[in-house]
Amino acid sequence: MFSCSESVMPNGNRAEPFIGDTRQLLVQKINLWDSMPSAKNMEEFCLKKNEQGKASKLKIIPLGGLEQIGLNITAFEYEDSIIVVDCGLSFPEDEMLGIDLVIPDITYLKDNINKVKGFMITHGHEDHIGALPYVLKELNIPVYATKLTMGIIENKLKEHELMNCTKRKVVKFGQSINLGQFRIEFIKTNHSIADAAALAIYSPAGIVVHTGDFKVDYTPVFGDAIDLQRFAEIGKKGVLALMCDSTNAERPGFTPSEKTVGKTFDTLFSEHKDTRIIIATFASNVDRVQQIINSADKFGRKVVVEGRSMVNIIETASTLGYLDIPENTLIDIEQLKNYPSEKTVIITTGSQGESMAALSRMASGMHKKISIVPGDTVIFSSNPIPGNEKAVTNVINELLMKGADVIFQDVHVSGHACQEEIKLLYTLVHPKYAIPVHGEYKHLKAQAKIANELGIEKENIFILHSGDVLELDEEQAEVTGKVPVGAILVDGLGVGDVGNVVLRDRQHLAQDGIMIVVLALDSYNSQLISGPDIVSRGFVYVRESDELLEEARILVNDAILNCLDKGQTDWGKLKSTIKDILSDYVWKKTKRRPMILPIIMEV
Amino acid sequence: MFSCSESVMPNGNRAEPFIGDTRQLLVQKINLWDSMPSAKNMEEFCLKKNEQGKASKLKIIPLGGLEQIGLNITAFEYEDSIIVVDCGLSFPEDEMLGIDLVIPDITYLKDNINKVKGFMITHGHEDHIGALPYVLKELNIPVYATKLTMGIIENKLKEHELMNCTKRKVVKFGQSINLGQFRIEFIKTNHSIADAAALAIYSPAGIVVHTGDFKVDYTPVFGDAIDLQRFAEIGKKGVLALMCDSTNAERPGFTPSEKTVGKTFDTLFSEHKDTRIIIATFASNVDRVQQIINSADKFGRKVVVEGRSMVNIIETASTLGYLDIPENTLIDIEQLKNYPSEKTVIITTGSQGESMAALSRMASGMHKKISIVPGDTVIFSSNPIPGNEKAVTNVINELLMKGADVIFQDVHVSGHACQEEIKLLYTLVHPKYAIPVHGEYKHLKAQAKIANELGIEKENIFILHSGDVLELDEEQAEVTGKVPVGAILVDGLGVGDVGNVVLRDRQHLAQDGIMIVVLALDSYNSQLISGPDIVSRGFVYVRESDELLEEARILVNDAILNCLDKGQTDWGKLKSTIKDILSDYVWKKTKRRPMILPIIMEV
Repeated sequence: MFSCSESVMPNGNRAEPFIGDTRQLLVQKINLWDSMPSAKNMEEFCLKKNEQGKASKLKIIPLGGLEQIGLNITAFEYEDSIIVVDCGLSFPEDEMLGIDLVIPDITYLKDNINKVKGFMITHGHEDHIGALPYVLKELNIPVYATKLTMGIIENKLKEHELMNCTKRKVVKFGQSINLGQFRIEFIKTNHSIADAAALAIYSPAGIVVHTGDFKVDYTPVFGDAIDLQRFAEIGKKGVLALMCDSTNAERPGFTPSEKTVGKTFDTLFSEHKDTRIIIATFASNVDRVQQIINSADKFGRKVVVEGRSMVNIIETASTLGYLDIPENTLIDIEQLKNYPSEKTVIITTGSQGESMAALSRMASGMHKKISIVPGDTVIFSSNPIPGNEKAVTNVINELLMKGADVIFQDVHVSGHACQEEIKLLYTLVHPKYAIPVHGEYKHLKAQAKIANELGIEKENIFILHSGDVLELDEEQAEVTGKVPVGAILVDGLGVGDVGNVVLRDRQHLAQDGIMIVVLALDSYNSQLISGPDIVSRGFVYVRESDELLEEARILVNDAILNCLDKGQTDWGKLKSTIKDILSDYVWKKTKRRPMILPIIMEV
Repeated sequence: MFSCSESVMPNGNRAEPFIGDTRQLLVQKINLWDSMPSAKNMEEFCLKKNEQGKASKLKIIPLGGLEQIGLNITAFEYEDSIIVVDCGLSFPEDEMLGIDLVIPDITYLKDNINKVKGFMITHGHEDHIGALPYVLKELNIPVYATKLTMGIIENKLKEHELMNCTKRKVVKFGQSINLGQFRIEFIKTNHSIADAAALAIYSPAGIVVHTGDFKVDYTPVFGDAIDLQRFAEIGKKGVLALMCDSTNAERPGFTPSEKTVGKTFDTLFSEHKDTRIIIATFASNVDRVQQIINSADKFGRKVVVEGRSMVNIIETASTLGYLDIPENTLIDIEQLKNYPSEKTVIITTGSQGESMAALSRMASGMHKKISIVPGDTVIFSSNPIPGNEKAVTNVINELLMKGADVIFQDVHVSGHACQEEIKLLYTLVHPKYAIPVHGEYKHLKAQAKIANELGIEKENIFILHSGDVLELDEEQAEVTGKVPVGAILVDGLGVGDVGNVVLRDRQHLAQDGIMIVVLALDSYNSQLISGPDIVSRGFVYVRESDELLEEARILVNDAILNCLDKGQTDWGKLKSTIKDILSDYVWKKTKRRPMILPIIMEV
């Protein structure tokens, strides 16, 4: 792990020294914070700039997040100023074997380090904050976020030993940040995590509203409803572009309030008075956890929290005042045995069927402290994220086989806006340009269709690709260029040291294994003095394939001797002869193509 | 590939000679075929046997299909007779790296070869017939199926060169087969492939009805509706057990008729008169293909069929009279260019997002003959099979990016019975025992609940596990034993030569790659005379990791010299020292655990 005190970049190079330019830049920024303008005089700021003469255009540059779920990071650039919205990770695709997570390529930001003023984080989900610890090691710039979001970010920074060298500022809703040519206002929204914010980004070229992930919840569990009035107010002044969450843009209607799930919990608790209840949900959905605790309290049950990420988030959320846990409700897992089963609830991770999460371990009988027994009621308060369907079903089947009653439908609501909510936002904000964000291409397309139906002309709707440079002002918007973007793979401590070559090798090895041919040549007269020996892994069960491997060895041996007899001692040629002979033979015999790796030793 | 003329078993052993015992058995069976009884005198057969005195119990032994989707194969045993229903494959789970397909372990059948009378195949889907060519190589017994099902089986037998040595009998609906102590009647059902059959299995212990995969379609596209009258008639006589398809047992209501999809096609064709239409569906859904052809004909479009399995099935189905293709409708892919786009339809494979299927290749621009162009209408006439959701979505996104209009909802109906249909079957058949089949555990549970609601007592409902031996008669039913079952992995030509050891190696290699340490020792004095050299694949990008690998090499070198100095020349110990040193070092530096493979050469 690279600690910030060393300032060593993941590529092994030393970072620019911390004291010096960067530090001065930081000090400059801190001064800006002291003069945070109120939302009211924000527009004057923009207007004033515009009056100074011909304004430049605003550049919007998504550095990730448009070709995949996750990896959300977007740069906004105006002349000498860049601000960055979010810094998310994405989880590896199936073919990215052995990869832990994926972070965005921030070459463009590094190349423009002197312009970059700060990260604005919309909310505390991994796909919006997960790459921060990696990126901050290369790009030490301040982070702005609301209180809970910052709390979650700080957990990460502590883990990566970045707390001391990362400038952080907690922002309240309605407050604005003044950074270079930008002012950024944080606007209250609702989402499946508390403290989610939309951003109004004021630049001399106009205002851009970025919703982050959002839904409209008129009756949220914690805090206020989305600040629709402020969206309307800003919309009234004239908004250049709206960048709106597309995740649910294919779904008609309105996403139900988070509170409806609370009612469902009450019903389920009253229907299952005689059994233990185990509820799996997303660790970060603090409001969901609150509602489970409320139902538990109402029905006189003690609550156990299980799963590392769940414990962490609940600790952070309750410390910061986002969770209200009645006294004597939470008990330690060790105390479970002191209460009758029907007087307990276990809140757990694993709602996505993740193989190492607590619920999966319970289902497979691998959990050290909790065993599923017939009669247990297990509730999935979640929907499977695309790609996890099968894993979730496997866990459900295992739980059923252990005799549990499993409830996995209709105990969840989405955190994203459906079509009617998207229409509401567009209508309030009334942007000139629509730039659908957050979602796969089909979701972006679906939002584009909605925007078009609401009267935004097709040429003013931009489905961008990561790396696109969209330049815009009141007159015109167009994609004028491309910046480097990409997915950097993180594997263990390595950031970016696993690329296509290594992945291709892993895929090849995964498919048919490896055959290694070793032999020793005399360095003087190039005589074969040992081998060839063949060692294989992941190809066939060796003990039952003696014949096959011995026949292969003889073939290779003959081929080598033949080469050496003819005086062909070029190692490259010798190796390719071995590869050809062996792969032909193996294909003919098995229709498999293991990786073939000849190793020649010189003695 | 093993040809039947050689009669070589996949394990390399010679099979029992074809001429001899087996052949005599075959002849015996052929004689039985000649006296196929009509359905009418079937019951007498059973009754007569019962009158002979105390009858034995019937054994139902699922050899697969209950812990997973696919791998359907069930043995029915009565005294000296065994018949086997279906012989399906399953597709590999994600963790079965490099595996092509999975077939059932038929040890139990091999151990009782003299009893086994034949395979009764319910319909031509892979999960019911796919393992036949592999199993028939080990167990040469006759196959009974309806006409289209047999046509599809024969395509497989040809591919595996098994046509000449496999006894086959095409059965008509209503006809029965008389095999040993059993008579088996084929009853017409509906499903997503034509010619699907349920089986009424008459034994001296009673009648078992096995639905196969089915739905109730009152208005099928081809042929008759499910023979509900016959189910009722048999039910009236008294049925011991019903083994009923559970796939949709969680879904309320009725599955719509296949014909509703035809209407949807007509609507879509009339709405997209100006564009080319590309429709992806399941190759085996002949009725679906028929309806596409009907709509094409109605709207004056030429039809191209693309994708190997689609071409094969259509050929078989039209040869056998299950497809009615108007003259001059079907054109070759090469002729596409001779027609305006809006006068063509392409029916293609790839509805499940399979990476090598025709549609995926079109979507990614890799198809040699068909390029997606803006305006193309692409219709998914299918739902993603669980586990394929993400792959399907990826293809949809790619198609949208190429400018196609993609329709992927509500152009499909299921081939499986929903709850109301299951209730109908139970009510007509009115079995004493319920044995839910076909589905994951949660589906079986859902059907068990339905059966219970219909009045079958819990102790008469059996959710079996593969390998269970359920013994039953009118008095009693209970699981009395276990037979060996399992999943045999097929990889290339190898059947069963990839097991847990090889799979674990592949998983390990896939995760973090491999590091190979080679060194040569003098065989006389055990001096290190070459190496150690470290070669890695799939671990790090070698060109950028010189330092890491060199440092590792020095560490290993020192450790070896240290050992040799101390006179420790035992190869096993030397190897484990290398492994320990290297894995510690690599973990510390990278938090990865590549496979470490020391190879010592003796010179």
